[in-house]
Amino acid sequence: MSFSCARNFLQRFCTEDVHSRRIPNHGSCFSNDLLPSLGARINQTTKLRRHIISPYDPRYRAWQMWLVVLVIYSAWISPLQFAFLTYKKDVLFLVDNIVNGFFAIDLVLTFFVAYLDSQSCLLVDNPKKIAIRYISTWFVFDVSSTAPFQPLSLLFREQSSELGFKLLNMLRLWRLRRVSSLFARLEKDIRFNYFWTRCTKLVSVTLFAVHCAGCFNYLIADRYPDPTRTWIGAVNPNFKEDSLWNRYVTSMYWSITTITTTGYGDLHAENPREMLFDIFYMLFNLGLTSYLIGNMTNLVVHWTSRTRNFRDMFRAASEFATRNQLPPRIQDQMLSHISLKFKTEGLKQQETVNGLPKAIRSSIAHYLFYPIVENTYLFQGVSHDFLFQLVSEMEAEYFSPRADVILQNESPSDLYVLVSGSVVVGKATAVDLFGQMGVIYNKPQPFTVRTTELSQILRLSRTSLMNTIQTNGEDGHQIMHNLFMVRE
Amino acid sequence: MSFSCARNFLQRFCTEDVHSRRIPNHGSCFSNDLLPSLGARINQTTKLRRHIISPYDPRYRAWQMWLVVLVIYSAWISPLQFAFLTYKKDVLFLVDNIVNGFFAIDLVLTFFVAYLDSQSCLLVDNPKKIAIRYISTWFVFDVSSTAPFQPLSLLFREQSSELGFKLLNMLRLWRLRRVSSLFARLEKDIRFNYFWTRCTKLVSVTLFAVHCAGCFNYLIADRYPDPTRTWIGAVNPNFKEDSLWNRYVTSMYWSITTITTTGYGDLHAENPREMLFDIFYMLFNLGLTSYLIGNMTNLVVHWTSRTRNFRDMFRAASEFATRNQLPPRIQDQMLSHISLKFKTEGLKQQETVNGLPKAIRSSIAHYLFYPIVENTYLFQGVSHDFLFQLVSEMEAEYFSPRADVILQNESPSDLYVLVSGSVVVGKATAVDLFGQMGVIYNKPQPFTVRTTELSQILRLSRTSLMNTIQTNGEDGHQIMHNLFMVRE
Amino acid sequence: MSFSCARNFLQRFCTEDVHSRRIPNHGSCFSNDLLPSLGARINQTTKLRRHIISPYDPRYRAWQMWLVVLVIYSAWISPLQFAFLTYKKDVLFLVDNIVNGFFAIDLVLTFFVAYLDSQSCLLVDNPKKIAIRYISTWFVFDVSSTAPFQPLSLLFREQSSELGFKLLNMLRLWRLRRVSSLFARLEKDIRFNYFWTRCTKLVSVTLFAVHCAGCFNYLIADRYPDPTRTWIGAVNPNFKEDSLWNRYVTSMYWSITTITTTGYGDLHAENPREMLFDIFYMLFNLGLTSYLIGNMTNLVVHWTSRTRNFRDMFRAASEFATRNQLPPRIQDQMLSHISLKFKTEGLKQQETVNGLPKAIRSSIAHYLFYPIVENTYLFQGVSHDFLFQLVSEMEAEYFSPRADVILQNESPSDLYVLVSGSVVVGKATAVDLFGQMGVIYNKPQPFTVRTTELSQILRLSRTSLMNTIQTNGEDGHQIMHNLFMVRE
Amino acid sequence: MSFSCARNFLQRFCTEDVHSRRIPNHGSCFSNDLLPSLGARINQTTKLRRHIISPYDPRYRAWQMWLVVLVIYSAWISPLQFAFLTYKKDVLFLVDNIVNGFFAIDLVLTFFVAYLDSQSCLLVDNPKKIAIRYISTWFVFDVSSTAPFQPLSLLFREQSSELGFKLLNMLRLWRLRRVSSLFARLEKDIRFNYFWTRCTKLVSVTLFAVHCAGCFNYLIADRYPDPTRTWIGAVNPNFKEDSLWNRYVTSMYWSITTITTTGYGDLHAENPREMLFDIFYMLFNLGLTSYLIGNMTNLVVHWTSRTRNFRDMFRAASEFATRNQLPPRIQDQMLSHISLKFKTEGLKQQETVNGLPKAIRSSIAHYLFYPIVENTYLFQGVSHDFLFQLVSEMEAEYFSPRADVILQNESPSDLYVLVSGSVVVGKATAVDLFGQMGVIYNKPQPFTVRTTELSQILRLSRTSLMNTIQTNGEDGHQIMHNLFMVRE
Repeated sequence: MSFSCARNFLQRFCTEDVHSRRIPNHGSCFSNDLLPSLGARINQTTKLRRHIISPYDPRYRAWQMWLVVLVIYSAWISPLQFAFLTYKKDVLFLVDNIVNGFFAIDLVLTFFVAYLDSQSCLLVDNPKKIAIRYISTWFVFDVSSTAPFQPLSLLFREQSSELGFKLLNMLRLWRLRRVSSLFARLEKDIRFNYFWTRCTKLVSVTLFAVHCAGCFNYLIADRYPDPTRTWIGAVNPNFKEDSLWNRYVTSMYWSITTITTTGYGDLHAENPREMLFDIFYMLFNLGLTSYLIGNMTNLVVHWTSRTRNFRDMFRAASEFATRNQLPPRIQDQMLSHISLKFKTEGLKQQETVNGLPKAIRSSIAHYLFYPIVENTYLFQGVSHDFLFQLVSEMEAEYFSPRADVILQNESPSDLYVLVSGSVVVGKATAVDLFGQMGVIYNKPQPFTVRTTELSQILRLSRTSLMNTIQTNGEDGHQIMHNLFMVRE
Repeated sequence: MSFSCARNFLQRFCTEDVHSRRIPNHGSCFSNDLLPSLGARINQTTKLRRHIISPYDPRYRAWQMWLVVLVIYSAWISPLQFAFLTYKKDVLFLVDNIVNGFFAIDLVLTFFVAYLDSQSCLLVDNPKKIAIRYISTWFVFDVSSTAPFQPLSLLFREQSSELGFKLLNMLRLWRLRRVSSLFARLEKDIRFNYFWTRCTKLVSVTLFAVHCAGCFNYLIADRYPDPTRTWIGAVNPNFKEDSLWNRYVTSMYWSITTITTTGYGDLHAENPREMLFDIFYMLFNLGLTSYLIGNMTNLVVHWTSRTRNFRDMFRAASEFATRNQLPPRIQDQMLSHISLKFKTEGLKQQETVNGLPKAIRSSIAHYLFYPIVENTYLFQGVSHDFLFQLVSEMEAEYFSPRADVILQNESPSDLYVLVSGSVVVGKATAVDLFGQMGVIYNKPQPFTVRTTELSQILRLSRTSLMNTIQTNGEDGHQIMHNLFMVRE
Repeated sequence: MSFSCARNFLQRFCTEDVHSRRIPNHGSCFSNDLLPSLGARINQTTKLRRHIISPYDPRYRAWQMWLVVLVIYSAWISPLQFAFLTYKKDVLFLVDNIVNGFFAIDLVLTFFVAYLDSQSCLLVDNPKKIAIRYISTWFVFDVSSTAPFQPLSLLFREQSSELGFKLLNMLRLWRLRRVSSLFARLEKDIRFNYFWTRCTKLVSVTLFAVHCAGCFNYLIADRYPDPTRTWIGAVNPNFKEDSLWNRYVTSMYWSITTITTTGYGDLHAENPREMLFDIFYMLFNLGLTSYLIGNMTNLVVHWTSRTRNFRDMFRAASEFATRNQLPPRIQDQMLSHISLKFKTEGLKQQETVNGLPKAIRSSIAHYLFYPIVENTYLFQGVSHDFLFQLVSEMEAEYFSPRADVILQNESPSDLYVLVSGSVVVGKATAVDLFGQMGVIYNKPQPFTVRTTELSQILRLSRTSLMNTIQTNGEDGHQIMHNLFMVRE
Repeated sequence: MSFSCARNFLQRFCTEDVHSRRIPNHGSCFSNDLLPSLGARINQTTKLRRHIISPYDPRYRAWQMWLVVLVIYSAWISPLQFAFLTYKKDVLFLVDNIVNGFFAIDLVLTFFVAYLDSQSCLLVDNPKKIAIRYISTWFVFDVSSTAPFQPLSLLFREQSSELGFKLLNMLRLWRLRRVSSLFARLEKDIRFNYFWTRCTKLVSVTLFAVHCAGCFNYLIADRYPDPTRTWIGAVNPNFKEDSLWNRYVTSMYWSITTITTTGYGDLHAENPREMLFDIFYMLFNLGLTSYLIGNMTNLVVHWTSRTRNFRDMFRAASEFATRNQLPPRIQDQMLSHISLKFKTEGLKQQETVNGLPKAIRSSIAHYLFYPIVENTYLFQGVSHDFLFQLVSEMEAEYFSPRADVILQNESPSDLYVLVSGSVVVGKATAVDLFGQMGVIYNKPQPFTVRTTELSQILRLSRTSLMNTIQTNGEDGHQIMHNLFMVRE
């Protein structure tokens, strides 16, 4: 299932590219496939024409979820009916037709649901275009999986044709594409845990395979001329008189014994027909088991990578410290910093911001840092433009409690602005900015600066500051003035 | 199979290197092995002498594919004949000899097929060299796998010698090297999906192993003195009278029950001879199963990595946004940008271009960007040389709809040229170039620039522009002139 | 178990972030979870109020470890009692109640144990707060898993109610959360080998699953109306008279035959009830086996990566050398360097140091290099500030014996200070500093410098030295003076 | 086995570090463990005192290999003797004692073999130190695994004591540490293929486990009071009269059926004693199977990564080309370049060279490039120093046939020297250097330069050339002179 989806996706991707223009705007919209929530937000503002439903309409989504529930029911009942049940007018008949009815409604409804055009990135609400698109793609399959073959079968009541109708009934399994596409969407939705989405999917596939194989194997036994030479009849010759529950459990038991390769052998193929089925089932199992293990390995590797990275970083640091017999104070600072970094950054945050275009980065910096920087005494009265350019160059860092930010006599490479927490500068405490003396007069830092608690600090390199001051002479004077006033 | 290929490859690679010259031109040609399509294109232009066939000739390739089909037939029929069939003059005899005939033709044909010399990277069409090369490598194996041992066996009709001839017949399996080398080539051909190529290969290997083991195990039972103490005779004492189909299915069933480690136990070894065979078969299975799972894991990891990377990037960005409570507008821009980047770049494109030598990169830039840049008003009338140098420095970027490209008062670091899509500069809309005021006069950007739809934009850094203008004074004047004309 | 932990962790992590302040100090303390040892050291200095115990108190830790031992006993005895034993006043009754007693004590004790507040990073020793926190989280579960249901069951001596009490008794398994959290802590503690911690955990989970399944399956057989139609009764009809040991071993044997998917089939489900249990057990096994293999793969990959990296680096170097036919002397130096680097760096050390903030890096450099550099003749008498800035720019490197550090006529890019080992400069040997002539007079290095044994050498780039001299004119004169004195 | 080795290694590594000096020369020698061949070369020159053998002596190595062969024999024969054979004076007795003799010789010999001191990196040939080291480590184990317990057992001929002697005899398995350390060494030796070394190791471990388990399980059956209630007796009640071969094959068959989890069930545990053994064996199998699969996955991932990287790079390039509809000429150049790069670099070479210290890099450049550069007309007559500095800055690159090296009007960033192959500069062909006009006069390159065949070209950046000329004025004049002469 997942294979074919992925393949289709790739094919579509490649084909599109080939036919695109010189400098094509391929990837021209946030397809529903990759980015459901965001796409939704952009398109939800769009006003559609009357009687046309948006695919992002919460009510339509709920309806789709309800259909998925019905699909799960169909997937379970169809093989069961195929193998165990004789079709007659009873409760199941009623339920079946009601379920079919829902799908028939959806069939009609689809003609009124707008779709996202992959070229224009817009919702298409032209009924004619919707109809053409649907009829040329999945309409035929949907119709054939909804047609009431079973009620029809009641008209032609013969043994042979019943099997034929039952086979037609298996077309219902086409509906499973809804579940398949649901999983494809969930995997890309970060609101859901990847591990559990993936596990649920694998368990579903396994259970469905077990169910189908069990039912089909029972059917073979049921139709074999000599009941004692069947896998179930060899153990229980009168199995046909047994209760449905017992027969179903036995089938499932056999099926799961085989798929897990446990193979007790208490129930086993007795005739070539069953052997042949077993051969294909076991080959399929070999693939499925490998696929399960492959997925689990993938998940475990990803799962443990965070702890592992932390361990590796921490071990490297503490080995370095031990080997060089660093004094406990430095050692403490090192280890604190590493675990703080590990906790705050989540290993990806800085990369994320760096990957953004300049304008977005500036917006973020402006939003986060501007209010803090404009309140520091040093930048009182400087122009808005100047500050705007300055904050774009700043970087936020966390310092653990009792960590050194500046060492006395250090070369003056950076200016720091305190965002939260507190530091001690020499003897002074209530400061919002430090390192300015060294940076502006270009001389070794006069004081050691140390945090007293967990602090967030903005760092601005001397080069950036000086470059910005150069192109904004007046603001430079204001800063010197501010600096001078305080020293006074 | 795949192991030995790879090992040979490595050995050859290393050996070659050792004997090469001081600064050797190892890797001196695009071997057929690594790069079939490209190698083909280069060599297809070569004119060969008469009666010599190019290995890239489509007709020869088709012939090779046809032989691969025959090999698959041979691989299936040879073990079957070995175990189940008595050799006599019937339809199978005819088919066998026809197939042999095809391989005999290929044997002769190979003397007329040019080969790629690994030193000169050229096709060698000297018949003598071709003959020497073939005779010194695979000629003996090919002859022995083509010789008609079975017709010969009809002459010596004894029980013991028949087994001998049957063994000789197994030499046909040598032909499998063609399938093996086909897969090795397909894996490196990007026109084929890696996942499916690999899966097909693994399934083929598994099926062949199952088939061989089933046949061989039957042979052991067939030749054991006491038929009731064999794995098949213990269940069905008169198995020798059974139909070929039933016996074959039973053998396959046993074989696959064993290879999947299901091991029902309904059919199991009864005598030491079978036990011994089973021991080796199960050991082989242990290796094969591990190999299957290893491959599947490898494929699954690669398969899911794209979705996973997207999830990780997206999650990091949205966590960052949520944690810092960024306003929805910035948040939207961030997420749009990330999903756009993910869709357009495919994570590898930029790396690819950066890895190319300068001349190729310049060619690409010239081809893609020159026509666009020369039509912008700013660069009207400037020299070709100047523009040529300029486009080499440009980088293409995608911006999602409603994203900021320039913020007002930003420092003027880049000049932008619009390729496709549209932007709003302050109030103006139909512009093809923006950021020029800030860049040329070196002052904060006067306007915010925002896209209205998905846009592709070329970025040129201020430094590059200024450097190029410096060395081309006249063109600089022309640009200033153009800029001035418009402002008027 | 591990799943739910990890999920909880992630949920808590995310939830916290959502509710945090604008620029939040999330990750505001070194939680006990991530960093036990360090957290301990910081908080151990804290003085708590009377009668309140620190969670880092070694005696409390020992008590917790003792409880973990009791939990393991409970985990083993509870399913056994559930399935095999009739509850009566014997030795086991006594032991059980003593164990319960310990947990009751812990229940009370927890009200006196301080906890680490995740906001303030401080130990909270307010008894009221401790009580509120405990009652609102795990109190109910702890009480229900400690309540003496079994003694109570003696009062109500009926068949049906006994099963009920036995089920209540299974609440004891809630105690396993202690083991689960122990493993979560051990995995993050670098004092324990990750591989063995992980293996122990997986083995524990497997054994517990095997034990539970075996006991439960026996219970089903024990309570089935027809003893001959049970998995154990089919083989041994009088199994109820058998000794406890035999019955337990048989159960375990069945359980482990199933979980390893060996499935001999000598013991297998005989009735639908057992089949149903088997189905769920085998499905669970499929997941567990995948999980085991996934973890093992993860560990093996990590395990072998060090050897593999070394092999790859070494192979690349020796292939390069062979291909270019480098003279043995250069080849030896290359390979020595690579293996030395591999041994000393452990691949992570340099990264670790580079990831630290500037102040910590300076501290480390000052601590390690200052005493060495200040004793070299060249830096005699220079100011402390100057040297302080200099050592921050230095980098330590290892050179293997007989390796070239400087080649004659090389461009003078670096100055070297010898830390340990010895070098030959031209003819001179006992030197502590070399490359100074070239660096200060900016001319090609006059001598080749070669190590005679394994040496650690500090490297200082010319640019750094010159920049520092420029801003410290006086120290520059002193250096020139020192240099001149020696040349005299 | 491999676990404990690795753990020991880690422990030793860590412990060493802890006790080392301030700036320790940990990793102070190329231990025999990590780097056998190189260590050998360094120490082989060392002259040892009389009667002391070097561990690197080829004859001693051969002796060690011979002992490994004997160990393999011991590992096979010991469990077999333990389970199947009664000890008496026959051929086996003789062989056994001869083998023991060899190990006794080695025991004595070890007192005369020098060892590598991990502190001084030197071979220690002091007999006293050698003796102390050996006696304090492995002496006791070696003695107990060599002591002739079996001949002794002939003296005390009782049933019960025989088992005791047999158990003592199992101490021989201690010898397996030699095989274990052999594998550890082979894995790090790049002359052996990692894949095959690893596979051989895993197969050996598996076979040994199978052999031991089979023998031990037979022993249990052999000693069980009721022969019909044993795993083998239930099928063949007179198994004790059967031939050794049949009993051994049956044991192996059972063992391998269990380890591969096939579990036919034809042979299965019949009594609690066997069940207990089975339980442990199956648990061990679960671990072993996971370990096998984990290793195989690791190998497969590494194995396929080269092909995969090539595919990914190639695909990215060709998608880029197709999407932007680049003309075939550029497309060809791109793809040629990528496949060439993939073949020549092997992905690691450049990294390797960059990781080396400057002096080694300069040596390599001097050795490889100097002879070529000094023969170009442009550098005729320049000083050796100048050229020496120049070649250190050069980088070698490969260009595929018909690839552009310089485009006309390109900015003059690099000078190129042709090493091998040939290029066309404008119309001229036989040139050894190009790009010089543009670089020296700093104007756009006047000609397009294109390769005609596969070429290796040295690239020197304009900046490096100009810097070197600046500090060597005279050489600059010479170059200008050379340039001028040719233009004339």
